[in-house]
Amino acid sequence: MSASRADRLAELVTASELDALVVTNLINVRYLSGFTGTNGFCVVGDGLRLFLTDFRYVERAKHEVTGFEQMRGQQDLFKDAVERLAESGAKRVGFEDHHVSVRQHARFAEALPNGLELSPAGDLVEGLRAVKDADELRTMREAAAAGTGILEHLRARGLTGRSERDVVRDIEREMRERGLEPSFPPIVAAGANGALPHATPSEEPIPADTLVVVDLGCVVDGYCSDCTRTFATGRLSDDAAGVYELVRAAQARARSAVEADAGCRAVDSLAREMIADAGHGDRFGHGLGHGVGLEVHEAPRLSQAGEGELVAGNAVTVEPGVYVPGAYGVRIEDLVVVVDGGCEVLTSFPKELITLE
Amino acid sequence: MSASRADRLAELVTASELDALVVTNLINVRYLSGFTGTNGFCVVGDGLRLFLTDFRYVERAKHEVTGFEQMRGQQDLFKDAVERLAESGAKRVGFEDHHVSVRQHARFAEALPNGLELSPAGDLVEGLRAVKDADELRTMREAAAAGTGILEHLRARGLTGRSERDVVRDIEREMRERGLEPSFPPIVAAGANGALPHATPSEEPIPADTLVVVDLGCVVDGYCSDCTRTFATGRLSDDAAGVYELVRAAQARARSAVEADAGCRAVDSLAREMIADAGHGDRFGHGLGHGVGLEVHEAPRLSQAGEGELVAGNAVTVEPGVYVPGAYGVRIEDLVVVVDGGCEVLTSFPKELITLE
Repeated sequence: MSASRADRLAELVTASELDALVVTNLINVRYLSGFTGTNGFCVVGDGLRLFLTDFRYVERAKHEVTGFEQMRGQQDLFKDAVERLAESGAKRVGFEDHHVSVRQHARFAEALPNGLELSPAGDLVEGLRAVKDADELRTMREAAAAGTGILEHLRARGLTGRSERDVVRDIEREMRERGLEPSFPPIVAAGANGALPHATPSEEPIPADTLVVVDLGCVVDGYCSDCTRTFATGRLSDDAAGVYELVRAAQARARSAVEADAGCRAVDSLAREMIADAGHGDRFGHGLGHGVGLEVHEAPRLSQAGEGELVAGNAVTVEPGVYVPGAYGVRIEDLVVVVDGGCEVLTSFPKELITLE
Repeated sequence: MSASRADRLAELVTASELDALVVTNLINVRYLSGFTGTNGFCVVGDGLRLFLTDFRYVERAKHEVTGFEQMRGQQDLFKDAVERLAESGAKRVGFEDHHVSVRQHARFAEALPNGLELSPAGDLVEGLRAVKDADELRTMREAAAAGTGILEHLRARGLTGRSERDVVRDIEREMRERGLEPSFPPIVAAGANGALPHATPSEEPIPADTLVVVDLGCVVDGYCSDCTRTFATGRLSDDAAGVYELVRAAQARARSAVEADAGCRAVDSLAREMIADAGHGDRFGHGLGHGVGLEVHEAPRLSQAGEGELVAGNAVTVEPGVYVPGAYGVRIEDLVVVVDGGCEVLTSFPKELITLE
């Protein structure tokens, strides 16, 4: 598994006219090598698979890391790595410019032996990560099923009369009892709070006859899930019920367009146009979706700024929303995996309006 | 509170011959302004207190941020900020080079109006954060007392026969029930695991007659605590008991030297020499301590690489350890606040060897 990821990266490194890429972002390091500690580098190039860590993690790396020659860093992992590269005759060394700080870069430049040059080369690993392999998809199915289980728990417990904060705590407790971690702090936002994209959970009881946005995800073996449902707590106004059905239809429409070769922007447009045509164009203030994997937000993006096309193996959310200021919000989000001619929906919790007491 | 922090920062900015500092690190932004969202900048200079965020956080910022003019960013917060700076006649603009990535810096440079120049100026806010004010110390006392409460809970529950992982889960659950969050994943490491600086918690039962390192901390209002104690689970070998007393004596010695004007390196040396004299010099493979505050590791550092002297208001850990490979580890850690002529110990849990069944 790890070997083939590093092999694919090595091809990209060579295609970028680099002799090696120094991978310092820990999530990328984990993806390539399996290492879960807090200090480790991968160095990948044609025929080169080097992993460095410090004395604290040497033992752990022996268990976790496969497919890499392991080297115990003496002082500064970067210095150790580039000295080794210089010996091997490397010239152009890529670094992850979207993660390396300006100060770190200055230190890298100082440590660089004569004859080596540093070249910004971020996103290569992120590009690989955007396309999940069979192992990753298995784990993500588990993470999504775990999230569905938590929504089922919530459905059994009800919402009305409990505070948003209570419900958040209940979600977190239930996850931990099931051996799960949240992939982000769960969102529970009732009534007007549902219209605030980043409301703090309130201590006030959730009233009857309103809408409640619940957005949560679980982590399984490092992989995240992400799912939003909007519940009713009684009878809704015709407006609110209409907006719910609008969002549900827009979500279904966009979801049905997710397939290999669909444009990231075009899929977003399908939901966006439907919402705009219903007169709520200015009430859907975020992108349609984002990639999910080792991070809860990663490539690709489904939005008006999204570039390129979906490919089989992308795992993306489809989550249109309509937020009516001072009144309520509706968001419905699935996590789906792109396949040829369609998508597999990982988040199986129903999307019909469910009323909870 | 926030105003005076920004005032002190403005003095440092002027002393660094900058017209303004753009503060992008979110912890620094929180320290200066009170803002707890995920996207916000502070811009501070002589007479300049500007806070920018995007539409998602405008409402939250109104509640949280004091002492700053608030501006809603239109597109790119940095671009909005520097355009405003250019209008005000600023020339040299500092940025946090230890947090800003190489790629972000390239974008900053692109957005920069003519006549403005960017200058690396990291650590200015971190320098202020290293010296806690009365409000911060009050919160940190609470965080430390909360950690002591968790250790008391553990003492009542016992260790022998439970797995490390069970104990970790128990600690986390107990914190959450008390409305606390862990400041880092708690460490529970029995026997030989205690000698691995970053062991993964095991599912095996903790045996009798060994040592167990427990390292935990709580977060209260954003501020962390950090405390380690090593417990016995029965009768110890003379060697193990001797190492415990050695570490306790080294900890007491170093702690008694913590005061305003003490050298960060000299304090580390006191514990290190005592441990080396007892023949365990190569078994104390980390620094004596580190600053604690909004982050669990911050300035200043107490180590052989530590520079400068302690000042009143520093909050630092004092945590020597001896790790005997394949056998056991001992670490004893207090969180203390530097005052003139001494220190206040915030972590009041006893340091005499406690035997838990």
